Amino acid sequence: MSGHGTSGPIGRPRGEIIAVGTELLTGQTLNTNAAWLSRRLAEAGVDVLFHTAVGDNLERLQATFSLAAGRSDVVVVTGGLGPTEDDVTREALALFAGRPLVKDRAALENVRRFFARTGRPLLPINVRQAEVLLESRVLPNDVGLAAGFAFDVGGTHFIVLPGPPREMQVMFERYARSELLAWLAGRGWTIQPLFHRFLHFAGIGESAVADRLADLIRHQTDPTIAVYAEPGHVLVRLSTRRPDERQAAEALEPLMDAIVARLKGHYFGEGEALTLAEAVIGRLKGQGLTLAVAESCTGGRILDALIAVPGASAVVRLGVLPYQTPMKAAVLGLDADGLAEHGAVSAWAAEAMARAVRRLSAAEVGLATTCVAGPEPQEGRPVGEGYIGLAVADRVWSLAVRADGDRNLIRQRIADQALFALFRAVAPSSEPDGENPDRKGEERE
Amino acid sequence: MSGHGTSGPIGRPRGEIIAVGTELLTGQTLNTNAAWLSRRLAEAGVDVLFHTAVGDNLERLQATFSLAAGRSDVVVVTGGLGPTEDDVTREALALFAGRPLVKDRAALENVRRFFARTGRPLLPINVRQAEVLLESRVLPNDVGLAAGFAFDVGGTHFIVLPGPPREMQVMFERYARSELLAWLAGRGWTIQPLFHRFLHFAGIGESAVADRLADLIRHQTDPTIAVYAEPGHVLVRLSTRRPDERQAAEALEPLMDAIVARLKGHYFGEGEALTLAEAVIGRLKGQGLTLAVAESCTGGRILDALIAVPGASAVVRLGVLPYQTPMKAAVLGLDADGLAEHGAVSAWAAEAMARAVRRLSAAEVGLATTCVAGPEPQEGRPVGEGYIGLAVADRVWSLAVRADGDRNLIRQRIADQALFALFRAVAPSSEPDGENPDRKGEERE
Repeated sequence: MSGHGTSGPIGRPRGEIIAVGTELLTGQTLNTNAAWLSRRLAEAGVDVLFHTAVGDNLERLQATFSLAAGRSDVVVVTGGLGPTEDDVTREALALFAGRPLVKDRAALENVRRFFARTGRPLLPINVRQAEVLLESRVLPNDVGLAAGFAFDVGGTHFIVLPGPPREMQVMFERYARSELLAWLAGRGWTIQPLFHRFLHFAGIGESAVADRLADLIRHQTDPTIAVYAEPGHVLVRLSTRRPDERQAAEALEPLMDAIVARLKGHYFGEGEALTLAEAVIGRLKGQGLTLAVAESCTGGRILDALIAVPGASAVVRLGVLPYQTPMKAAVLGLDADGLAEHGAVSAWAAEAMARAVRRLSAAEVGLATTCVAGPEPQEGRPVGEGYIGLAVADRVWSLAVRADGDRNLIRQRIADQALFALFRAVAPSSEPDGENPDRKGEERE
Repeated sequence: MSGHGTSGPIGRPRGEIIAVGTELLTGQTLNTNAAWLSRRLAEAGVDVLFHTAVGDNLERLQATFSLAAGRSDVVVVTGGLGPTEDDVTREALALFAGRPLVKDRAALENVRRFFARTGRPLLPINVRQAEVLLESRVLPNDVGLAAGFAFDVGGTHFIVLPGPPREMQVMFERYARSELLAWLAGRGWTIQPLFHRFLHFAGIGESAVADRLADLIRHQTDPTIAVYAEPGHVLVRLSTRRPDERQAAEALEPLMDAIVARLKGHYFGEGEALTLAEAVIGRLKGQGLTLAVAESCTGGRILDALIAVPGASAVVRLGVLPYQTPMKAAVLGLDADGLAEHGAVSAWAAEAMARAVRRLSAAEVGLATTCVAGPEPQEGRPVGEGYIGLAVADRVWSLAVRADGDRNLIRQRIADQALFALFRAVAPSSEPDGENPDRKGEERE
């Protein structure tokens, strides 16, 4: 839980974000900076009311700054601080504010050090990147050349940051956030930090989650509940403004328990950026279990997601992708007559694959998928139909699944269903969903 | 090659895009619509000078529309056409334009049909989605409920589209584009279509491509050359405004040949959305070759990219991910003494894996990767170091590779290098890069 916020003398401060760069207006670059900065300003208690993207043009930049100063308390400008003539954000700000640009000694030293380190010659154009508005507060750039700065015009606070996301983010986190909070406090907007909890759910859609929580969401003031669709799962964010972490926990924990109880059987963990694959690796590692996976139509989606998790090598022993049907017999040793009888896309094949890949690898757990990803039907089965096979302890079973969408959406959705089925199948027996409600299919072995 | 454009009575028409939705201002949703519409407006010859995102607020919406009408010829508004009270784009436009909203008969019929089809009851709030501005030109919604519309205020043309990207895109492609082109033509902006060619290069960075084409880029007027970094490769887009496709081809083809000649050994194909995996599948299929892949550290990245291509099942026979080292011996049959002597991350292992997976699958071509993805070094080898193994016809060889970045960037970059090495390794002998300059490593078998 972390963050900051404000509640002010007359409501909350109004903010806006101005992103500068012709590459935004041609559609070449997505304006991710505006979204990122919006979240940071919300944490600081600023209501963001406008985003503007504008090109590297002196006249239009000045008009945009004037408009912003007339309607906002806080304006964050990002981009247009590069070394070339195209980059005119500094000059436009100087014209708008009626103040000259000056070289900042420390920023110039930063530029000099960079060129000394790389052995490249320092060009006059690079000196421009050490220029800031006279009497502004300089924001150091620890990972690039262009200095940032902050200044006031009328009652409006301007914060100027570079455009490359990494430079912008590091500068905001290290310098601009505290600068902004100090400015807000100085204006009488008392700071009350914002604390979050992030809960993750799978096997259920965003609107079904929102529906089951509808009464809680309808009556919310603080804490607030927000529901987001993440790739492959649903994220519920709980937020509260409280004086400290202890009081925030007191406000959030009963709500969190109530939400998890309502969505029993779908919850898989807590944390801002948790993925289903991380939850699976964490649960297997916690029990000292290893895993082997046989993927047919999902073809690498499951293994790629699992192996993306640092530390996966302690859990994932083996992956086999018997993509052409004869490989299921040749490599996994599936019975050719059984394959011919049941088909490659069948409960029989999913179970046989899970059992075979587990045996081949001597892992404790085997997972398998077989499905029709399209674009063409296969063996008379329609696109989107498939089976997930699981082999855990002395049991082997399968689940019939269906997914909509194009080839790669089907592959992704069946991979997500397989990961969640695996997560449930290896629940520690102490946990409420350790009963394995999925184990209704045929069981063998 | 396709597209449209204009050259006007006084320069080119000025445009801007207004995206409506509080979810943009909270940072919950990225403004991808602005980028997409920018590219479409550029094709139509409109210079996009501003993007604005604004919340679902009557007063701020009206102010934004007034500002836009004062500075632009064409204004595209997207979002805020939903059924709920939050969505006030229609009402704000009516107040701004001083014209009432009216129900469109055809749009209402569309809404009715939707509810009849899904069996859900038609609610009064949904009727709002069939409302348009009086005396506007209606833009049908073939994939959703909210009707779009177009109208003029003063000399400015407003085009209003729904916010969900798919509805917005289908409505633009089917109805709004031609409506816009007709409006531009009516104002004397004569249409000259814009034609593109898209060329793809791998094994070279964006700035190195820009550097090798610097003189061509510097002197460009028409055709123009733009260089983009795509995931795993570089895209060069050539564009020209010509009366027809034949004249466009005459302008573009000599330039295209010159660029491919300068970047010989890096070119892998043409087409707007080509990926390296598609080029690999296309080249193998063209020669009737099948493929088997053994991935260690890249763990599913290569196979996932290949199997994402429709028709991959004719080419990809088998994938094996012997993720824990003993699996390299147990499943692929690598010599345990050789593994102990050379290490799992070695040229020896890469070659043995490529040879083994090819033999196991009876495919014509084998590809293998082994590397240290991190976060920890392995067998004394640093993070980012690795080998690509290839088995083609009677030859087996390997390439030493290196990649920077975090765990998953390293996995991605080595996967990209492996796909490009494979692409070169299976060049038809008739092609200039069929000489296989990569084949400098040790060769065995």
